[in-house]
Amino acid sequence: MSKHWSISDLLAGKVDADTTVTVKGWVRTRKDSKAGFSFINLHDGSCFDPIQIIAPAELDNYNSEILQATTGASMAVEGKLVASQGKGQSFEVQATAIEVLGLVDDPASYPIQPKPHTMEFLRTVAHLRPRTNAIGAVTRVQNCLAQAIHRFMHERQFYWIHTPLITASDCEGAGEMFRVSTLDQTHMPMTDKGEVDYSQDFFGKEAFLTVSGQLNVETYVSAMSKVYTFGPTFRAENSNTSRHLAEFWMVEPEIAFADLAQNADLAEDMLKYIFKAVLDERGDDLAFFNQRIDKTVIERLEGVVNSEFERMDYTEAVKILQNSGKKFEFPVEWGTDLQSEHERYLAEEKVGKPIVLMNYPKDIKAFYMRMNDDGKTVAAMDVLAPGIGEIIGGSQREERLDILDSRIDEMGLPKENYWWYRDLRRYGTVPHSGFGLGFERAVLYATGMKNIRDVIPFPRAAGTAEF
Amino acid sequence: MSKHWSISDLLAGKVDADTTVTVKGWVRTRKDSKAGFSFINLHDGSCFDPIQIIAPAELDNYNSEILQATTGASMAVEGKLVASQGKGQSFEVQATAIEVLGLVDDPASYPIQPKPHTMEFLRTVAHLRPRTNAIGAVTRVQNCLAQAIHRFMHERQFYWIHTPLITASDCEGAGEMFRVSTLDQTHMPMTDKGEVDYSQDFFGKEAFLTVSGQLNVETYVSAMSKVYTFGPTFRAENSNTSRHLAEFWMVEPEIAFADLAQNADLAEDMLKYIFKAVLDERGDDLAFFNQRIDKTVIERLEGVVNSEFERMDYTEAVKILQNSGKKFEFPVEWGTDLQSEHERYLAEEKVGKPIVLMNYPKDIKAFYMRMNDDGKTVAAMDVLAPGIGEIIGGSQREERLDILDSRIDEMGLPKENYWWYRDLRRYGTVPHSGFGLGFERAVLYATGMKNIRDVIPFPRAAGTAEF
Repeated sequence: MSKHWSISDLLAGKVDADTTVTVKGWVRTRKDSKAGFSFINLHDGSCFDPIQIIAPAELDNYNSEILQATTGASMAVEGKLVASQGKGQSFEVQATAIEVLGLVDDPASYPIQPKPHTMEFLRTVAHLRPRTNAIGAVTRVQNCLAQAIHRFMHERQFYWIHTPLITASDCEGAGEMFRVSTLDQTHMPMTDKGEVDYSQDFFGKEAFLTVSGQLNVETYVSAMSKVYTFGPTFRAENSNTSRHLAEFWMVEPEIAFADLAQNADLAEDMLKYIFKAVLDERGDDLAFFNQRIDKTVIERLEGVVNSEFERMDYTEAVKILQNSGKKFEFPVEWGTDLQSEHERYLAEEKVGKPIVLMNYPKDIKAFYMRMNDDGKTVAAMDVLAPGIGEIIGGSQREERLDILDSRIDEMGLPKENYWWYRDLRRYGTVPHSGFGLGFERAVLYATGMKNIRDVIPFPRAAGTAEF
Repeated sequence: MSKHWSISDLLAGKVDADTTVTVKGWVRTRKDSKAGFSFINLHDGSCFDPIQIIAPAELDNYNSEILQATTGASMAVEGKLVASQGKGQSFEVQATAIEVLGLVDDPASYPIQPKPHTMEFLRTVAHLRPRTNAIGAVTRVQNCLAQAIHRFMHERQFYWIHTPLITASDCEGAGEMFRVSTLDQTHMPMTDKGEVDYSQDFFGKEAFLTVSGQLNVETYVSAMSKVYTFGPTFRAENSNTSRHLAEFWMVEPEIAFADLAQNADLAEDMLKYIFKAVLDERGDDLAFFNQRIDKTVIERLEGVVNSEFERMDYTEAVKILQNSGKKFEFPVEWGTDLQSEHERYLAEEKVGKPIVLMNYPKDIKAFYMRMNDDGKTVAAMDVLAPGIGEIIGGSQREERLDILDSRIDEMGLPKENYWWYRDLRRYGTVPHSGFGLGFERAVLYATGMKNIRDVIPFPRAAGTAEF
């Protein structure tokens, strides 16, 4: 056969008209004309659009095979690339040979019919849903964002660090964790005290799945200056919402010699860079999302890319909220965490663009965040974006050992667990900062999809670990 | 202060001599001259070499602070960039101001002294070891390889798919897996039959950490044509070797419409691409590895990049080994797996370059590998490289439902667990192939390091989950 081209290359005009080409993919639709040929829309995942194939009835296997190729069937097509007569299609292929590779068993029951499906239904056939317009487009945007994150970091001389997922030190002290074990669950080894004897477990001690790579990656920033993690993290929270997963991916940059203001700049630069990549590279998919899923998605991405993010102190935000005259479900008081309704009011109604909210009350933030001179707030930040609320959370880290120690004590954490984290403050400590971006939330933002379970291939949540 | 530059930019000549610059980093060594100044080697992780700082005794804080800054202390230096008089150094900085950011507690006991340390010792201070020449260089090479993998895949229009790590379907049937659970280990819920009642666990059923993303990613290749995974995988094997980890990263490309030969081409292209990136971009680190760790590492990488990989059938390899006249510890017989000694003989002594060994006996390979027409072998491949042996394993996948089913039956696997995997063969099945590259093994190969625990930040193995 002639050279096998991706449909994206053909539709983008990378091949001259009248060239003989081969394309391979799956049938989206087939329409048979009485004039003696069939129109086949063939898709290969390389871009949003399928390419149209004209299959003449003169082909040897037209009746025996091609007319059996229903939606979802796979084929290899050789033919001449010609400028399309139809609307919205740049090129089509006049087939000279079609090999049907795989038919569809019982076409009437094939789950992915050429009609709209609910997202709920598609989750039950997650192994087939990438064949739909929506999930195919999510996959390309998701990939575009992920590649852009690595490119952004690499251009700025950050190193990608593979921090461990299995951890024996519950250093975050945050939330519920999944236990990792190889003990025989029906015959647990017990100590004399009636406790499980984890010294007999695989790692010789209790082990869990990590909730964040931050503490580990701080060891690397204290030698390499600019580092990041990009990998899975886990939360065993029994919350069945459209925004939470038990397993999700996080991007966590960490930068030495940087204060909170530089941290905020990095977060702003990164968000602009990755959303600009989607606007530049995935116009086809964005057009679909904007038309079918969320009519504001392109405008919203352009808003992020073209705006200068507002900086605002938590204390100022509380005043604005209290004086807003708005009725909120949750009252606003200095010292309490802001709720989604408050965050969205600030980003959407008050300033109409992303805000970096900074310097939160210490009592609602983690022990490792740097104490400000006022003794009441810490150098924490959240980036709030119109249409979604919090998309990034970060802080300058406490680099002063004495203050870190008193924070650990204050929160009743076991200091001995933090010996290595404390060592970083004993040996050439430096100011440093970092933040975390929940990757799937960025995909939600860039696509307008409503449920986080539809922007990760096989979602894991309470009661859900299918496929 | 003036602009903060990375040391790599300064040593690479990106800034003109006589410019006032700021550099920030950690002291490697400090030597005090009686002539009234100190030489400080300052490192920031951005490249292998430190930059030399000349600190004159006239600085205000020379006696009070600078002379206290021992190995490991952190500082910010402002000064004039000048061409260096010394050997092997392109530029140095004549300091006009030095701010000491963090001293070293009890310098005599600081673990990272400016002298050689054993790798075994450094594992006990894994939080500080990136400050050493060896682990710093590993980190940069590791990052270079990881970035190159994403770049290679992106240039070839592959999509990165985040396959799940937590899995409820032990589809691989391979090796021991880690259990993931939130059940109270001291009060396990039991069924009437005396078994653990996993319906009460977080996911409503037994869940494990995945050993491979392959089966999951095959669902995406059946819609997107070219995909890959790059993430952590897990093996609960109690093997305490220098080549095995309980948690490690794998790269698993999967390509539709591709047979074993095209799969082998992709593997060859990828290895050449990523090792060429290391040769092109990390000459400084490679020079160190070649001098201190393994005198053949550069030659070996160039060998991979510049050679055409040999293709050889398993059956032919067995004949060669049997006729080699070599005494092997393990006998060679058709139908048995090759041992490391055999693989290395073939790659190192017989052909002297990488080999793609293909078409293995079906009984020593997984159920999903495509049956060859001979009925005895499957379309499996291993890439063997001189100096390490097997570095990649892959196969063409069985796309024919009837043959897949008979293989599942033959191996006594529960067919109902594979319903979604089988669906891919029922609905528009296509020939497809893929392989797995153990990422840390590639880092071993590119650095000459001997133990896999030294090429991942915080290694997890039996009895080992520190930090």
